[in-house]
Amino acid sequence: MHNAVPLVEVWRGPFCESLHRGHAVVWEEGSGIVASWGDPDQVILPRSSCKMVQALPLIESGAAEAFGLYDAQLALACASHNGAAVHSGMVTEWLTGLGLDPEAALRCGPQMPADRAARTGLIKTDTSPCQIHNNCSGKHSGFLTLAKHLGAGPEYIDPDHPVQQAVKAAFEEVTEETSPGYGIDGCSAPNFACTVTGLARAMARFAAATGAGDARDRAMHRLTRAMAAFPHLVAGEGRSCTALMRAMEGRASVKTGAEAVFVAIVPERRMGVALKIADGGTRGAEAAVTQILTGMGVLAADHPVARSYTHGPIRNRRDMDTGYYRPVPELADWRL
Amino acid sequence: MHNAVPLVEVWRGPFCESLHRGHAVVWEEGSGIVASWGDPDQVILPRSSCKMVQALPLIESGAAEAFGLYDAQLALACASHNGAAVHSGMVTEWLTGLGLDPEAALRCGPQMPADRAARTGLIKTDTSPCQIHNNCSGKHSGFLTLAKHLGAGPEYIDPDHPVQQAVKAAFEEVTEETSPGYGIDGCSAPNFACTVTGLARAMARFAAATGAGDARDRAMHRLTRAMAAFPHLVAGEGRSCTALMRAMEGRASVKTGAEAVFVAIVPERRMGVALKIADGGTRGAEAAVTQILTGMGVLAADHPVARSYTHGPIRNRRDMDTGYYRPVPELADWRL
Repeated sequence: MHNAVPLVEVWRGPFCESLHRGHAVVWEEGSGIVASWGDPDQVILPRSSCKMVQALPLIESGAAEAFGLYDAQLALACASHNGAAVHSGMVTEWLTGLGLDPEAALRCGPQMPADRAARTGLIKTDTSPCQIHNNCSGKHSGFLTLAKHLGAGPEYIDPDHPVQQAVKAAFEEVTEETSPGYGIDGCSAPNFACTVTGLARAMARFAAATGAGDARDRAMHRLTRAMAAFPHLVAGEGRSCTALMRAMEGRASVKTGAEAVFVAIVPERRMGVALKIADGGTRGAEAAVTQILTGMGVLAADHPVARSYTHGPIRNRRDMDTGYYRPVPELADWRL
Repeated sequence: MHNAVPLVEVWRGPFCESLHRGHAVVWEEGSGIVASWGDPDQVILPRSSCKMVQALPLIESGAAEAFGLYDAQLALACASHNGAAVHSGMVTEWLTGLGLDPEAALRCGPQMPADRAARTGLIKTDTSPCQIHNNCSGKHSGFLTLAKHLGAGPEYIDPDHPVQQAVKAAFEEVTEETSPGYGIDGCSAPNFACTVTGLARAMARFAAATGAGDARDRAMHRLTRAMAAFPHLVAGEGRSCTALMRAMEGRASVKTGAEAVFVAIVPERRMGVALKIADGGTRGAEAAVTQILTGMGVLAADHPVARSYTHGPIRNRRDMDTGYYRPVPELADWRL
């Protein structure tokens, strides 16, 4: 992380108050790196940005078909959701449909929902948040579906469990790298490491999938389309993944990850984007990925959603404009 | 901000996942810089870290004495508090005692309290947060007290208002710099810029105050002691300022500011500390200031509070240890 380069400045009045450094790669399927900032070989933990990779075995194994999963569920499997009623409700229905007790089967841990209505509802009724509210509960529902299909044991987050071994194999195949190891994620699942380039390369493979190829091609195509079709299931109201995918109207699928990772799948360009803000600041990752998407021509730079992430304004508690974001020229001036 | 140096690493499993860069200065009154990391001349907005400077005119003008302010109120004037009942209650009592309607007089804007009990209480009763809950409402109570003492108008946050002009004069005197300008803070007050060195120099002047000197010396001494005497009023339960001051048992007064500024006043060393994490990440500022305080010998490195800020652990939603912080050797190995 020590050789990250400046990407996004944060200004307040006449001063550059803060600065986000990072690494970013745009990869074109069948070609290679078309643009990069910082060190393309930086090893990162993709965190939740690789949930569509973690969902590949769910489809490729035949589990999704065997249990009749619909596309909205696949979008939820790729989600870091807000724990709104729609998210936790779908998880409950999904798991009970598998004959599982959600709270007994899940291993993601409880999390207070980010969704305001859901949070308020819990607080007003003195109810503790549950595992279904965890932002990763859709991914874990996918893991549980695969575990059931494989006839594997309940500890599906164990790195040696068949589910995680299948995830690791898919991850190494699409990144085209041997993972140097893993960290334990916020949801207790292993999260395999790769380079920023490897993650961008994986996203480019998703982008290039046509749905007319082999099992992997079809799985990648279906997941990409499911995310783009259900932006509110991938995150939720007020969240950047949802807002950006809505603004791009299906032209790209994007996903954030903890500690400021962000990826984009751009089918019309057969390109993938991966970036990591070195300091873990989400606002920096949102600004950077949005700037790159505008540079790729799949999001208008003056779209209000794009503008809000790339330039702010930063408002205070009396709604005064106090500052703004400013991508550095090396990022702001880039065009595909 | 572009020339900040690595200060604190964030590890997950076997990987350095994130990195916080910054600038820091330790200044000794009557001597100068005794240690620095990054660029001592970096211009920053101190944000809430300079509230004890903003409170100087409240005392030096005679306003605090005229209105009989007690030390707990002065600690609250230096606070970025949690909006707990004790904080909002003191503000209400203070302002009504001045004959003011708090919500009509304050200009800080409403803010949902960080304090869990206060927040839950508001949510359960469908009550909107008020300005008294704003983390800066104590500072603003000080501003209103000074405005009343001066017979000045109600728009006390206007940069040209006598209150802010007095703040600016005090700020420039204790930093020994001509401020290059200001930004508007989250609470709508102007926040004057200075160098990291200027802020550390100001803190060293507070540290060297004996209470037996001129009006400024007595004001600085009283504010430093008030902060150390009432750690829970300066922030609140679960907050680093409160936890660190309790752990140091009066040996230092510390204060955080938005966008990862942190200062420390260390009377026994006649030294001041100021630091800014370039990316605005609070966890980085907490780790760095704690590490410096241990290096200065006023906080035991193995104290559980110190250890939690400098080394973690970082726990996930099932309370598993997933990672830790690690100050870089240039910071970790420093001793006064």
